[in-house]
Amino acid sequence: MGCQLPIGVFDSGVGGLTVAKEIMSQLPGERILYYGDTARVPYGSKSKETVTEYSRQIIRFLMSQGVKVIVVACNTASALAVDTLRSEFDVPILDVVEPGARAAAAATKNGRIGILGTEGTIRSGMYNKCLYDINPDLGVYSRACPLFVPLVEEGWIYDNITREVIKRYLSDLQGKEIDSLVLGCTHYPLLRNLIDDVAKEVIGSNVTLVNPAVETAKELKTLLAERDMLSDHTHVPEHTFYVSDGAEKFRSFANSILSCTVIETKDVAVKTFE
Amino acid sequence: MGCQLPIGVFDSGVGGLTVAKEIMSQLPGERILYYGDTARVPYGSKSKETVTEYSRQIIRFLMSQGVKVIVVACNTASALAVDTLRSEFDVPILDVVEPGARAAAAATKNGRIGILGTEGTIRSGMYNKCLYDINPDLGVYSRACPLFVPLVEEGWIYDNITREVIKRYLSDLQGKEIDSLVLGCTHYPLLRNLIDDVAKEVIGSNVTLVNPAVETAKELKTLLAERDMLSDHTHVPEHTFYVSDGAEKFRSFANSILSCTVIETKDVAVKTFE
Repeated sequence: MGCQLPIGVFDSGVGGLTVAKEIMSQLPGERILYYGDTARVPYGSKSKETVTEYSRQIIRFLMSQGVKVIVVACNTASALAVDTLRSEFDVPILDVVEPGARAAAAATKNGRIGILGTEGTIRSGMYNKCLYDINPDLGVYSRACPLFVPLVEEGWIYDNITREVIKRYLSDLQGKEIDSLVLGCTHYPLLRNLIDDVAKEVIGSNVTLVNPAVETAKELKTLLAERDMLSDHTHVPEHTFYVSDGAEKFRSFANSILSCTVIETKDVAVKTFE
Repeated sequence: MGCQLPIGVFDSGVGGLTVAKEIMSQLPGERILYYGDTARVPYGSKSKETVTEYSRQIIRFLMSQGVKVIVVACNTASALAVDTLRSEFDVPILDVVEPGARAAAAATKNGRIGILGTEGTIRSGMYNKCLYDINPDLGVYSRACPLFVPLVEEGWIYDNITREVIKRYLSDLQGKEIDSLVLGCTHYPLLRNLIDDVAKEVIGSNVTLVNPAVETAKELKTLLAERDMLSDHTHVPEHTFYVSDGAEKFRSFANSILSCTVIETKDVAVKTFE
């Protein structure tokens, strides 16, 4: 029943490809239908109402194409919109914040956790809420990092200026004895090496980076298995990528991130503010 | 006839306020109706089709409110969309690129001009086209500066990291003997002091910055006078500000840029992709 349908994954743009990549790796038999809202990226600085409305439009589009589950592969949309979206749609909806919080709680040894994210994600307090639900005694310290996304999009991944920006943001978390640091935006794993390097220098040598995508893919696998919804594809499936703007630019970025080759992307606008 | 109607000004977000400010200063008797598309900012990385469609929606909205003239206070929309928009609407439409090019051509002594702008503006080649139309013998050198807008929005206006980013971008213009450098994005005048400083160090001590807003306001005044459309307000008029997201955030930014106090802003979404 519906097992051969693809997994719908969406993000404000290219960042969610780090989640898609993890799903492809842990669930190699599943097809992915990806939507990147490249016309309206970034979500990180937008209001709850706007992010919820954009997400709603995209889920409607993905459902019209036929998907068995939705993965909100955007921390901002996960933090601001997922509660509302779950109440509105019948399809199972996974987010990245709850799995990210669980992974961070599992990773910490001293109970002191740092969160890096967009303005919207940090302001929502959703990581804090999820972590305190797990264990109210955790120490949670967060920092919004609005420049990380534009730096990744500029391609300054291994760069001294990017290192300085990371240092500036992380210096706010200095002295908190954090041992587990969440990359709370799907773009951030692309800066992983540099963040790791600076975190060890600024925060402490025993700090571990947590990528919510890994735990999200794991929980997706459990959910599909429990509901008997795993596909029985025996060949490597073809994934499909839709974007709301700049299909060509998206494709070259996607090809640099994913191990599979993105053969086709399509510009598809979704209706807004109906 | 229609002289008391406001001037419609729009931008992808807050940047166009630098143009609104110049209009207020040169045309103190005119009312401004401003629209900032803060839900879909930035335009600089978007395609011609998307920027044209967004601009079209905003002009329809401004016209529905009643305006006597439209000022496209966004270099990207000016560069990518203005030709199409002029063919579609009856209202006079002023852009910022043509006045900016005229100001740069007037400012240069040695005929060597530099253009800083968003990806979309630079890729369009519109500044080059306008400048070569004025004088085909000009030397024109351009550089996209995608990080300037997020740095301004982060508030790092007087900052060493911002200085390093400016230096990186301007180093591409080194050795070209440029004496006139266009701030080809409405956000950039907010970095004016730092850009001026670095430009004198990297490009040459005789380089002059050109802010297209000044010339745009001047040409707007001429147009209104020629068509007998200047208002005869005798009191200081009340301006109106609409945004597509985050009215509160916009208001505090606007209050820091404008000499008048922004009393009211309204969230108004425009229909997209009809």
